[in-house]
Amino acid sequence: MERIGIVGGGAWGTALALALNRAGQRVLLWVREAEVVEAINDRHENPLFLPGFTFDAAVKATGDLAEAVAADIVLLATPAQHLRATTAALAPLLDPAVPLVICAKGIEETTGSLMSEVVAANLPRNALSILSGPTFAAEVARGLPTAVTLASSDPELGRRLATAIGSRTFRPYVSDDVPGAQVGGAIKNVVAIACGIVVGRKLGDNARAALITRGLAEMVRLALAKGGRAETLMGLSGLGDLTLTATSLQSRNHSLGVALGRGEQLGAILAARRSVAEGVSSARAAAALAGRLSVDMPIVAAVDAILHRSAPIDAVIEELLSRPLRAETTVVS
Amino acid sequence: MERIGIVGGGAWGTALALALNRAGQRVLLWVREAEVVEAINDRHENPLFLPGFTFDAAVKATGDLAEAVAADIVLLATPAQHLRATTAALAPLLDPAVPLVICAKGIEETTGSLMSEVVAANLPRNALSILSGPTFAAEVARGLPTAVTLASSDPELGRRLATAIGSRTFRPYVSDDVPGAQVGGAIKNVVAIACGIVVGRKLGDNARAALITRGLAEMVRLALAKGGRAETLMGLSGLGDLTLTATSLQSRNHSLGVALGRGEQLGAILAARRSVAEGVSSARAAAALAGRLSVDMPIVAAVDAILHRSAPIDAVIEELLSRPLRAETTVVS
Repeated sequence: MERIGIVGGGAWGTALALALNRAGQRVLLWVREAEVVEAINDRHENPLFLPGFTFDAAVKATGDLAEAVAADIVLLATPAQHLRATTAALAPLLDPAVPLVICAKGIEETTGSLMSEVVAANLPRNALSILSGPTFAAEVARGLPTAVTLASSDPELGRRLATAIGSRTFRPYVSDDVPGAQVGGAIKNVVAIACGIVVGRKLGDNARAALITRGLAEMVRLALAKGGRAETLMGLSGLGDLTLTATSLQSRNHSLGVALGRGEQLGAILAARRSVAEGVSSARAAAALAGRLSVDMPIVAAVDAILHRSAPIDAVIEELLSRPLRAETTVVS
Repeated sequence: MERIGIVGGGAWGTALALALNRAGQRVLLWVREAEVVEAINDRHENPLFLPGFTFDAAVKATGDLAEAVAADIVLLATPAQHLRATTAALAPLLDPAVPLVICAKGIEETTGSLMSEVVAANLPRNALSILSGPTFAAEVARGLPTAVTLASSDPELGRRLATAIGSRTFRPYVSDDVPGAQVGGAIKNVVAIACGIVVGRKLGDNARAALITRGLAEMVRLALAKGGRAETLMGLSGLGDLTLTATSLQSRNHSLGVALGRGEQLGAILAARRSVAEGVSSARAAAALAGRLSVDMPIVAAVDAILHRSAPIDAVIEELLSRPLRAETTVVS
């Protein structure tokens, strides 16, 4: 049995705690909100972030970061934009020998950094791995079958982590492509917004499938520019997560796109929601990053323009559709 | 203006006729059924195979195969299992200088051949290209935006065909991977049945996304064994068509899988339907082909076992989910 600390008690951190408990590990979850710590320890539930599930009593929470990370393995499951602050707080507390698994998906808005770059800046001595893939938290919490990519530059560590985290219904596949495994999760929400717009505009399933395909090509180009491999994006962290997010009605980003496509205004859509759609921030960060790296990402640029620069939807879609006919194989070059 | 003959007046051939008419070409559609020829020429509709659309009067049909293929370009849009007989009939009629575009998707059941192999056997002197991608016929007929792969081993011919076929809303992307561009369309229906089973069993969206991802990996392995390239499967003919078929309720194969997953019997499902789900045949053909080529295709094998060898669904799914944890990058090796 390994002692596993999970930093972040939102829906994803909580679902991971349940999955790891099911895998037979000892789990301690760090949660910022005192009332959630209490709810988990006393009533075995997290009504704020993952309502409707009763936990095994062995899943414990703490508000003490040092206690949570006194573990064999630590998972980082805070929101992407909080990860720099969280890891800064961890620096004086964490044993450099403890391997970290980054479970947050996104690009840091202020710097355009991948999550591994953010963590390495604050915790340069800890080994870093990436957990990513098609994972609706509520399904993982219920124990429905889920497969993920676990990327580690050290293959032996990757296998150890996969064994620790894996169970019959939560299955990690090991990769050694740390940058590549982060790109899918960071960009998929932006493509999902674009797909939602197409659905809201009633442009059909063919157009959505083409957008998903061209969106994956944009991910591949960004991954290559960041030192990753194209084949990683064909896996669970790329295609898998993209397919999930861009076709499911459960996705907040997809449904935000549908509302935009129907003609609703962004301000009104966001005001009516409790939770933020991560793609709104990611679109800006990814468009800026693509510009800096000279990576061609027209779908990301189009979503950024619609969301943040009042570009008219029909004109932007028309431009996307009328891009010159090119060899399809340029998608990976 | 090019004269384009289309062989096959089903939903797809008819939708292609409308798209090419919109592209400004002169289109003549060969249709087997005399009443459909009459409906197209006199009432400008195909109520049997593509109800609900009124055609431009310039779209004409004929029952005379020789007349249809006296053209600059010929598209073959018959069902996959009829293509050998159709091309045998074409052999004495067709000028060997006329380029052919294969629009049928599938694997020949009796031989395990790709469509290009079937056509080359009967028409060895005509240049062959492949048109494939995410294309619900009804959306193409309505002029909704659609993008396709057009694969030709001769890049100059590929560009000429793309220009002839393409329009603002029907956009071909040129590839030179003729075998690779056929594998997606042949296997996607089998994966869509598997995805439907997962949905019918209420196993969740995570599991379906994982199946789509692993299904694409099976396609890549088969494409490599047939001399194609992995990157082609990341494009419209692979990922694009797979995503469309495996997530849309419009797909007959997906809905057949859902019914199986809910516990209905194959015989009863098929008896209640007018149209056949191509994946039922493809599963058997693809499983046999994979066996002959020693290509690992566990999802295809599982669907074949459920459909044709009375394998119990729950045991098969359990086996699929409990495959050993492996490096994800083995998907492309």
